[in-house]
Amino acid sequence: MENKRPSIVIVGGGFAGLECARALERAPVDIVLVDRQNHHCFQPLLYQVATAALSPADIAWPIRAILSRQDNLRVAMAKVTAVDTECQCVQAGPLSLPYDYLVLASGVTHAYFGHDEWSAAAPGLKTIEDAREIRARFLLAFEEAEIAADADARRKLLTFIVVGGGPTGVEMAGAMAEVAHETLRADFRRIDPRASRIVLIEAGPRILPALPENLSRYARTTLETMGVEVKVDTRVTDCTRDGVTLGDGTRIDASTIVWAAGVVASPGAQWIDAEHDRAGRIVVNADLSVPKLPNVFVAGDLASVSGEHIPGIAPAAKQMGRYIGRQLAERAQGRETKAPFQYRHAGDLATIGRRAAVVKMGRFELTGFLAWVFWGVAHVYFLIGLRNRFVVAVTWLWSWLTFRRGARLISAAEE
Amino acid sequence: MENKRPSIVIVGGGFAGLECARALERAPVDIVLVDRQNHHCFQPLLYQVATAALSPADIAWPIRAILSRQDNLRVAMAKVTAVDTECQCVQAGPLSLPYDYLVLASGVTHAYFGHDEWSAAAPGLKTIEDAREIRARFLLAFEEAEIAADADARRKLLTFIVVGGGPTGVEMAGAMAEVAHETLRADFRRIDPRASRIVLIEAGPRILPALPENLSRYARTTLETMGVEVKVDTRVTDCTRDGVTLGDGTRIDASTIVWAAGVVASPGAQWIDAEHDRAGRIVVNADLSVPKLPNVFVAGDLASVSGEHIPGIAPAAKQMGRYIGRQLAERAQGRETKAPFQYRHAGDLATIGRRAAVVKMGRFELTGFLAWVFWGVAHVYFLIGLRNRFVVAVTWLWSWLTFRRGARLISAAEE
Repeated sequence: MENKRPSIVIVGGGFAGLECARALERAPVDIVLVDRQNHHCFQPLLYQVATAALSPADIAWPIRAILSRQDNLRVAMAKVTAVDTECQCVQAGPLSLPYDYLVLASGVTHAYFGHDEWSAAAPGLKTIEDAREIRARFLLAFEEAEIAADADARRKLLTFIVVGGGPTGVEMAGAMAEVAHETLRADFRRIDPRASRIVLIEAGPRILPALPENLSRYARTTLETMGVEVKVDTRVTDCTRDGVTLGDGTRIDASTIVWAAGVVASPGAQWIDAEHDRAGRIVVNADLSVPKLPNVFVAGDLASVSGEHIPGIAPAAKQMGRYIGRQLAERAQGRETKAPFQYRHAGDLATIGRRAAVVKMGRFELTGFLAWVFWGVAHVYFLIGLRNRFVVAVTWLWSWLTFRRGARLISAAEE
Repeated sequence: MENKRPSIVIVGGGFAGLECARALERAPVDIVLVDRQNHHCFQPLLYQVATAALSPADIAWPIRAILSRQDNLRVAMAKVTAVDTECQCVQAGPLSLPYDYLVLASGVTHAYFGHDEWSAAAPGLKTIEDAREIRARFLLAFEEAEIAADADARRKLLTFIVVGGGPTGVEMAGAMAEVAHETLRADFRRIDPRASRIVLIEAGPRILPALPENLSRYARTTLETMGVEVKVDTRVTDCTRDGVTLGDGTRIDASTIVWAAGVVASPGAQWIDAEHDRAGRIVVNADLSVPKLPNVFVAGDLASVSGEHIPGIAPAAKQMGRYIGRQLAERAQGRETKAPFQYRHAGDLATIGRRAAVVKMGRFELTGFLAWVFWGVAHVYFLIGLRNRFVVAVTWLWSWLTFRRGARLISAAEE
């Protein structure tokens, strides 16, 4: 009897899905990678697109170009709508994709704690489209303030709120302060962009809670020096296009609000009718397979490994994807593998404007300018594609030397 | 009596408006430059954004950043809705801008010869947003063809039509052929992008009618070698999302249609109730002022200089803008100027894919690879901003060496 090559369907072309596909490069399998986007997006730098430092194409890359040399794989741009675990088939747009093994790596999106109506007022930062929308709102606020007739309107337009004090929120707030206080300084005649108010709101007792307290404190002081108001222990109780209301009843009028607080999983758990945690993440076994569905695996932010907290960061997603890819490669070659997945935490880092960052790797801690250089080198290194690395490096160097930003386009403003 | 500095309002931040503002750099005047976009767009390279070679930010630049050092000028991002020539005031969004001199440089948009309903089916190429839309349709066609079930649908998806055989149409068709036949070659499994059909349709007897016949012939042969079908003496009589109908009744099914045939002026003539030609261009005197409105000037594509044909190209717009700026600078200093505007035609050029171009400057003609190098150097030179020049040069070199394209993002496809 002939040995049929197993079919593998990977849902999602993020860090986990790509890494899984690559780990299967030489395996005797047939892979279909499905994503509803045509591109892989380097999410850790999305905030730079949102603040006009980089162009979308600098941090995104067509999935099929990344994997074009992998002969055992094809890419389909389609949106998954259902999974039939009995017939072992994925429905994606017009496609029915039968599978022997299924890898779900469709990630998470931003969550509004049950207030989905806030999403129009406060976009999150998960896709290129999100970043472009935030960039347009942010830049448009200065343009509208410049031609606004009364002082109240100007004050509201020049108030920017970032909700969520994790790395994304800290990076957004720092970059916004930089744009307002440095980049745009000379460009307006009626308003002074340096008078902008940037408010970072965190519900917990400190920003960057994943880092040790001294680094949180350093980050906060640095942000404050840059002109960011940091409010901890502060909840947002309402959020509209005109501003936010805080837990103590204070109202802050603002025209631009960015949501960087909390995530909810993509509907993977519904597709396969699996047990999930409160954020919708699929609860998986130690080998990242789904209980009762031994040929379905979950990687990246969508996975909730029972009994272990794995952060929702790129290195974790890559490790899971690579682990599953290797497991499946072994199986395709008739070998058994039983070692469970083990997460290795490389470290945490966040950048704060153009002069400082915080880095913690094991017992090694670093702050200030050296940490910032470390952060920059690490991010350029992990960018996909030689050209992107080069363009981003050149763009950063240029921006850093000139205080300018290269991608100040408002295109949503067109009719 | 104190000498009040004259107020000048410039409408439009294209080549003409910018050049006019710059010519007034040292003049004792107060300038407001109004544009409904925040950015100046280098239109000659828009087709490269539409075919995924460059990012929008590579060819666009915030108007206020370009002019930030010019102290006698402020920029307002607002849409002009009316001009009161009696009170000498421009209405733009919430602004009322009084003027002593008015310069209209709001350009043209694409015209559908009375068939405005074709615009949804066949977008033109005048703005960054247009280019992004065409890029999304073009790239999405390949993605949809890859997952399409039947051969007819695939054939339709892989048919691309460019209407209009001027420089923009020729450049679009050449770039599309290059993407289909080179860039995407290895990226698909079920379709062969090289089987794509690219059709360039021109109503007149030859493409590039502004150039001598031998250069038109060369361009046509080169395009045909690259796999573009060139149809001259061919009119489009209908145009839908499913394809076009030609004058002889032939129907071509296609999913992507680009309109590069004919332009119509922006509503400048209505604003000031002035005489205009069939395309809506304002008929102006030899000094580019409007008959009966001696303090209103028109520059760039919006101007129709009586008795003279001035092509709608960047150098012509710049010359007009500079001329008006200098005239106004002289007047502001109490000097009289009477020399009429004289257009100096520098030349015509168009590129055809990655190996050839045609150049004509005076009696000097050039074709082939050398012409292509000339075209590239000229365009990089005229790009605004040191960083943009550098990034575009690097991106081109990289694309040329690798056959890849850096900006293959489909973002309109998102939900």
